Amino acid sequence: MKKHNFSAGPSILAPEVIQKAAEAVVDFEGMGLSLIEISHRSPEFVSVINKARALVLELLDLEDKGYSVLFLQGGASMEFVRVAYNLLSDNGKAGYVNTGTWANNAQNEASFIGEIIEVASSKDKNYSYIPKEIIVPNDLDYLHLTSNNTIYGTQFHQFPSTQIPLICDMSSDIFSRVLDFSKFDLIYAGAQKNIGAAGTSLVVVKDAVLGKVQRNIPNILNYAKHIERESMYHTPSVFSVYTCYLTLQWLKDLGGIPAIERKNRAKAHLLYSEIDRNSLFEGTAAVEDRSLMNVTFVLKDLKLEEKFDLLLKEKNISGLKGHRTVGGYRASIYNAMPLESVMHLVETMQTFERMFG
Amino acid sequence: MKKHNFSAGPSILAPEVIQKAAEAVVDFEGMGLSLIEISHRSPEFVSVINKARALVLELLDLEDKGYSVLFLQGGASMEFVRVAYNLLSDNGKAGYVNTGTWANNAQNEASFIGEIIEVASSKDKNYSYIPKEIIVPNDLDYLHLTSNNTIYGTQFHQFPSTQIPLICDMSSDIFSRVLDFSKFDLIYAGAQKNIGAAGTSLVVVKDAVLGKVQRNIPNILNYAKHIERESMYHTPSVFSVYTCYLTLQWLKDLGGIPAIERKNRAKAHLLYSEIDRNSLFEGTAAVEDRSLMNVTFVLKDLKLEEKFDLLLKEKNISGLKGHRTVGGYRASIYNAMPLESVMHLVETMQTFERMFG
Repeated sequence: MKKHNFSAGPSILAPEVIQKAAEAVVDFEGMGLSLIEISHRSPEFVSVINKARALVLELLDLEDKGYSVLFLQGGASMEFVRVAYNLLSDNGKAGYVNTGTWANNAQNEASFIGEIIEVASSKDKNYSYIPKEIIVPNDLDYLHLTSNNTIYGTQFHQFPSTQIPLICDMSSDIFSRVLDFSKFDLIYAGAQKNIGAAGTSLVVVKDAVLGKVQRNIPNILNYAKHIERESMYHTPSVFSVYTCYLTLQWLKDLGGIPAIERKNRAKAHLLYSEIDRNSLFEGTAAVEDRSLMNVTFVLKDLKLEEKFDLLLKEKNISGLKGHRTVGGYRASIYNAMPLESVMHLVETMQTFERMFG
Repeated sequence: MKKHNFSAGPSILAPEVIQKAAEAVVDFEGMGLSLIEISHRSPEFVSVINKARALVLELLDLEDKGYSVLFLQGGASMEFVRVAYNLLSDNGKAGYVNTGTWANNAQNEASFIGEIIEVASSKDKNYSYIPKEIIVPNDLDYLHLTSNNTIYGTQFHQFPSTQIPLICDMSSDIFSRVLDFSKFDLIYAGAQKNIGAAGTSLVVVKDAVLGKVQRNIPNILNYAKHIERESMYHTPSVFSVYTCYLTLQWLKDLGGIPAIERKNRAKAHLLYSEIDRNSLFEGTAAVEDRSLMNVTFVLKDLKLEEKFDLLLKEKNISGLKGHRTVGGYRASIYNAMPLESVMHLVETMQTFERMFG
């Protein structure tokens, strides 16, 4: 019986990605060797990482616009630090919008490296909304946003307009909706939600934004060094990068971001409609800021949780528990999540209402 | 026909590790989900990383000796930086022994963070030997060594004795020979040679050596933070860590480090004997410093290279090319390399001698 996997990350990947990744671990492209025992400098793997980098630019509509693509190690958490090292000058200040745990972590890590200003925050209401009409000082080195807040289920649907470089952690919603990505000077994302297996991060950076700080940056933390070496400054996370390549190719074959956005909107609409209709549940995020990727909700009567958890288990629904810091429920409905699994969850919520409503 | 994989890294893994890793990508432990789409905080994965951490201490005979084990992201190259951040004080100095490209990279990265002293070097003879009778000043924060030099095929068979903390990059020979690992205060290694798939690094650190620098260290670069969170400060490289667990278990089942060392010595002896006997080849590393892991050699007559390369291809021998910076040949005969592949290489060298000797 099929498992319906609503895990927040690492999370569901397309079945063909899983299948091809497993095959490559046994024998990569008929080489007679496993993907994980060949040199990262073999023509076969160099081709994988280069195709993946090209697909990123193609899917984001950033070809020939002065951007470089890197697959680095360390996840988004390492980019919190790398961003500040590369863009926050010794006497400068960087602006951060604090929309959740990860946004807060990003500014926290940057504060080890330079001065940061929290230009807006939604902490006052437990991060249940996205701050609006953010005033961005023009003397900042950059403004940092987190486009989607995995834990709280909120998402920027409009981005603040600004004259300074715009940096965005898109870990949990990259490739999920059409945006003018050229408005951003640096986009980064951990792989393990919409891109591939954990173990790599994706960085898309406008070359012109680099080289402006005087700081001496260790090579491994220096974006320019990684760009110069075409994302092969050191051994990349080979298997993870391969799953990214497979997922990007899968997304392209599907029709790219416009096609997946239509599916994502249909899935989110279906689930939010049920949450709003069902007498037993309620959403936790401000309606206008609801995420298309992470749908957070609670049972109005907490005493029913144990019974709902039991039904979820019976119905083969996994990964629906809210983040350990907030409780409740969270359905992560990333790109690879099929509509049928969302329908199955909705039916299960309806069944539960018939049982206990 | 079987491929004989002498790649320097990413490199050969045990066949059962490859097989089990591929199976886990399809369905992990009968969960009905892939290993790469479950939460890293699921009990199933937490058990994997904890078993792997315990196996490391058991295999290195470091149980109950005050050491912590971490699986981090970034490879050995990131540890070059993390070591210096955590152990090199603002007014202190660290000593480095420069025995090759990676040793040189380690000290180079550290020099971005603090003052370093090159206490010995073998650069004068193209890193073909290991410096002896190294004088180590007692006022250094630590001494850094690279136990095995993948590119040049040299290896420390005796370590300098010192009163200061001893740090060692064991990327290409960890778990390959019995050592008194308790002499080291911090050991690190990229996974992709003797431990598992690229995408993670292993760090084994004596807790007492930490906390002595005043520097404010970003969390992701702070060993103490990773120890506090039991190697789960952020999402680890799940698949890579799983392959490490499988390899460590495979090594334990085989009889641990004493058993693998016997095999490694037999393989190295067989190959070096042939290099010394065969009239067409010669070794490039000083005999007394020859590595048990990376066997470097050249054809005396460079004009024969094309013909030897052709024969290697015919005989299904891959990954034997020397590093792009040094040329010649390098047979990497890590733990997972079977004796029969080394015998096959030796027979191929003998065939070549009959053809062109």
